[in-house]
Amino acid sequence: MVTRLSHFFLRTLREDPADAEVTSHRLLVRAGYIRRQAPGVFAWLPLGLKVKAKIEGIIRDEMSNAGAYEVHFPALLPREPYEITGRWEEYGDGIFRLKDRKGADYLLAPTHEEVFTLLVKDLYSSYKDLPLSIYQIQDKYRDEARPRAGLLRGREFTMKDAYSFDYTDEGLDASYQAQRDAYERIFARLGLEFVIVQADAGAMGGSRSEEFLHPTAIGEDTFVRSAGGYAANVEAFTTVVPDSIPLEGLPAPVIFDSPNTPTIATLVAHSNAHLDAPADSVAGPATTGATEWSAAHTLKNVVLALTHLDGSRELVVVGIPGDRDIDDKRVEVAFAPAEVEQATEADFEKHPLLVKGYIGPWSPTGAVLGEESATGIRFLLDPRVVDGTAWITGANVDQKHVHSLVAGRDFFGDGFVEAASVRAGDPAPDGSGEVELARGMEIGHVFQLGRKYAEALGLKVLDENGKLVTVTMGSYGIGVTRILANIAELNNDAKGLIWPASVAPFDVHVVAAGRDGVVFEVAEQLSAELEASGLDVLYDDRPKVSPGVKFGDAELVGVPQIVIVGRGATDGQVELWDRRTGDREVVAVAEAIARLRA
Amino acid sequence: MVTRLSHFFLRTLREDPADAEVTSHRLLVRAGYIRRQAPGVFAWLPLGLKVKAKIEGIIRDEMSNAGAYEVHFPALLPREPYEITGRWEEYGDGIFRLKDRKGADYLLAPTHEEVFTLLVKDLYSSYKDLPLSIYQIQDKYRDEARPRAGLLRGREFTMKDAYSFDYTDEGLDASYQAQRDAYERIFARLGLEFVIVQADAGAMGGSRSEEFLHPTAIGEDTFVRSAGGYAANVEAFTTVVPDSIPLEGLPAPVIFDSPNTPTIATLVAHSNAHLDAPADSVAGPATTGATEWSAAHTLKNVVLALTHLDGSRELVVVGIPGDRDIDDKRVEVAFAPAEVEQATEADFEKHPLLVKGYIGPWSPTGAVLGEESATGIRFLLDPRVVDGTAWITGANVDQKHVHSLVAGRDFFGDGFVEAASVRAGDPAPDGSGEVELARGMEIGHVFQLGRKYAEALGLKVLDENGKLVTVTMGSYGIGVTRILANIAELNNDAKGLIWPASVAPFDVHVVAAGRDGVVFEVAEQLSAELEASGLDVLYDDRPKVSPGVKFGDAELVGVPQIVIVGRGATDGQVELWDRRTGDREVVAVAEAIARLRA
Repeated sequence: MVTRLSHFFLRTLREDPADAEVTSHRLLVRAGYIRRQAPGVFAWLPLGLKVKAKIEGIIRDEMSNAGAYEVHFPALLPREPYEITGRWEEYGDGIFRLKDRKGADYLLAPTHEEVFTLLVKDLYSSYKDLPLSIYQIQDKYRDEARPRAGLLRGREFTMKDAYSFDYTDEGLDASYQAQRDAYERIFARLGLEFVIVQADAGAMGGSRSEEFLHPTAIGEDTFVRSAGGYAANVEAFTTVVPDSIPLEGLPAPVIFDSPNTPTIATLVAHSNAHLDAPADSVAGPATTGATEWSAAHTLKNVVLALTHLDGSRELVVVGIPGDRDIDDKRVEVAFAPAEVEQATEADFEKHPLLVKGYIGPWSPTGAVLGEESATGIRFLLDPRVVDGTAWITGANVDQKHVHSLVAGRDFFGDGFVEAASVRAGDPAPDGSGEVELARGMEIGHVFQLGRKYAEALGLKVLDENGKLVTVTMGSYGIGVTRILANIAELNNDAKGLIWPASVAPFDVHVVAAGRDGVVFEVAEQLSAELEASGLDVLYDDRPKVSPGVKFGDAELVGVPQIVIVGRGATDGQVELWDRRTGDREVVAVAEAIARLRA
Repeated sequence: MVTRLSHFFLRTLREDPADAEVTSHRLLVRAGYIRRQAPGVFAWLPLGLKVKAKIEGIIRDEMSNAGAYEVHFPALLPREPYEITGRWEEYGDGIFRLKDRKGADYLLAPTHEEVFTLLVKDLYSSYKDLPLSIYQIQDKYRDEARPRAGLLRGREFTMKDAYSFDYTDEGLDASYQAQRDAYERIFARLGLEFVIVQADAGAMGGSRSEEFLHPTAIGEDTFVRSAGGYAANVEAFTTVVPDSIPLEGLPAPVIFDSPNTPTIATLVAHSNAHLDAPADSVAGPATTGATEWSAAHTLKNVVLALTHLDGSRELVVVGIPGDRDIDDKRVEVAFAPAEVEQATEADFEKHPLLVKGYIGPWSPTGAVLGEESATGIRFLLDPRVVDGTAWITGANVDQKHVHSLVAGRDFFGDGFVEAASVRAGDPAPDGSGEVELARGMEIGHVFQLGRKYAEALGLKVLDENGKLVTVTMGSYGIGVTRILANIAELNNDAKGLIWPASVAPFDVHVVAAGRDGVVFEVAEQLSAELEASGLDVLYDDRPKVSPGVKFGDAELVGVPQIVIVGRGATDGQVELWDRRTGDREVVAVAEAIARLRA
């Protein structure tokens, strides 16, 4: 049935929504695809729902090709399974919790590992039942602190989440690869450029994890890539550890007065003014050959406060080269599931050995941080602080620093941590050259969970030898609504949206442009014939709307193929208008139909 | 792609689920369609999801034929719109409420009138935009006190809810009729018998309301119908009011001792033992000609306690003929949105004028109930208590009753109320004869809301004369998951489910029954050919499962057409098995394919 604009539920807006920060949000609202209901919560109007259904159709198709079966879980789930795996607590403020009339705890699920695991446990008992991949396309909820960018970071969003179940590691690898391949096909069909980056697997207890990032300047994720093919998000980037330096013959540490130098910049200036120029032997590899002191010669000791799941607070000092900063995302992953913040004044007051601005691992009276620490506070080092590197750093005495302080001789950490920022030019860990930084938006995630959930929830099967073995799982997510927004973000111009044919809300947009009866007669018949040949037609039959307004609406709505039925209608001619290229061509009605069908 | 049972996510169960009260629940769980997650909350397994999708497809199709457009609202909605219409309070414990991290109130919407109204208000402004009908198919939530019967009364359930918008009453009638017609087509296509009954429209402030009930013994709703075509649920049934009786010449009231007669039964026995037999003139029309006193001669005065929305408690006395009871559903509707319960001992203690067991509208010292009441408590009468009817009722004195007490002469109510039970044999209000009572399950509801929501939320449009007029609305619901359960309830036998072809999860179920290679070869090829011709095939290719188990599973799962590929395969013969009739017929493979395609 031809959809008539005179009756269709669509109103385009002239004004951008006041809260729209990004193009996709602005255009999807203006063109009548979505409408805000609450912060980060949207209603889908008919156009938006049609595009969403097409994306879901492509995903279903490729999930089926990957041998996965569709199921559907409730959004409202009881607390118990999430309690067992510890996620009820871990989610913190990030989820919506509620109670039923009897006081029982529920959540609106942000992801479904637990209940998929329990479902399979419920029904399966033998290795013969495996492998299994099942998925759902479902509305999920996260109570984002700052919902923003329209559909790109909402509090209600649609995801495809798949879960695989195997009883061997090789099986998991194969299931993982099948989903990964399906994702590549899905994004190719959606015309959505992507980079597969290594992601941190640790927080969820798994072994292998990759993200599909759509490279875009409005992306929330920073990732690094090398010309040689390495790609990872910054959380997963691992520092290349330099060789250690023989300790023999290195100069002894020297304490020096450094009044009013609580920052790296003031310390460097002071050092250049008062110390001898650096010798090759007094600094780490990164600074070899330097003729002046720089931030890279200094060791910056940052005090972080961790809040553990049990509510306890722990101070940790992280020593990183002074020319880098603590990276919030890397540090979050490094210390997960604890929450991390900068230490407060109150923390410093409780620990008088930590002399703010002059903190170091060593003091004239002994080790303040690290092995045999006087504070009892853990001291973790950047992986670049290898044995033999020498540093200018705090002397744990107000207004005093120390230089030629050598790691592995004068001080020791309690371990290493990936906390420092990654920079363009850093070497890729796989030896494929220097990395560059780029921004991307996560559109998919494949994840080898391993046995964490199966272990916690008791999902075991009998193997070939009749022995109970714990199942190993994968988890695979695609953000349906986020993909839709990304496609919109990528396919538009100043006039409006330009959908790829595979997800366009209609195949053809027919515009009756004129007031003559013949215009409407021809447009009517053309629309009917196109629809009869299997195309989905939006027909702008509004009788009293000017051609200019109709063209503007067509451009805003963004159906890729437009047909204008105007003055030429009397001669049996119409105009084919390619929304993407802007090309317009006058052809006979019959030819227009033939070309649109093709 | 042929779905292979060796790999498909399906496990049938031998045992009935312990909590299953009804057939549909028992079979849908055992046959692997659904799985319980929490009380009244289910996960959908692949088979169940396929049936659900088919039902939704039929509904979408007919909604489109009715000119309605699909949209989709979030389940998570902010409090404000529901606050404005008063429903945030009215829902009481019946909905799930929650707060976000900022403390703002949200609900999981049980129905969406408010936000549909606001959406149209947002986008529409002129009568030219109307009529409009929009709908969604969406997961809804109600915090049922006692979720039960599987999908029939769940806490999460799928509904199609449509809303119409018009600016004239005639427009609303037409929109209502279009949805009503679509419902008739939908239920016909689903093979689901239905009765359209008048429903109470009052509670939602509307004018016309009808329910589509599926007649079934496990139905929760009682409805009445007459041979002449009247049908209504008991809440909507209106009593036929008898003619009043001239007061002239009626005997005067007489107080009599009635020790130990606090119940109707004891009072009737006492009256027959101690009073003269009833004369025609001393009772209402229902009892004319009686030779003995019966419960119908008595007026039973029941004290109810209403809890109003503002929390205040009000006592009300309802006077009904003693041969009827207070009907909980009718009384609930009659006093909505107040909650109704029986008065407690504490209530009686506060009102010493109400002498329990001997309450009446009149006492020797004056009116206790009704106009000029001494108690201040409202006294509402059954519509049958018309002027001139005479009653035996309490005298407001312990151990005393009064007879020949005449309505409209000796006592007066403060109004009438439809609170008494409906009985088989009662006259239908439309004069179409006596009614009978039957049980049904609500599967659809069409409702003229009128202007209540548009008024509350300010949805107005400019009419032809440039005048702002308030829009009038309709609301139309179909319970998708409830329909599915009803179809299952209606289509089964001792062996399992038997789906109608229109909603069956697969078109054909092919069973390879045997161990010979040729059995699997023929079954394989047959399945592929059927699938290639557009049929959706479930192929039981499990290599080590006995034919008996496979047949049992086929019967349980309930695909209507089964093909058995067994010993005859060597001769190119297979067996067609009609799941519903049980008929089995041996035919050549080619003929099997031809017949299944047809």
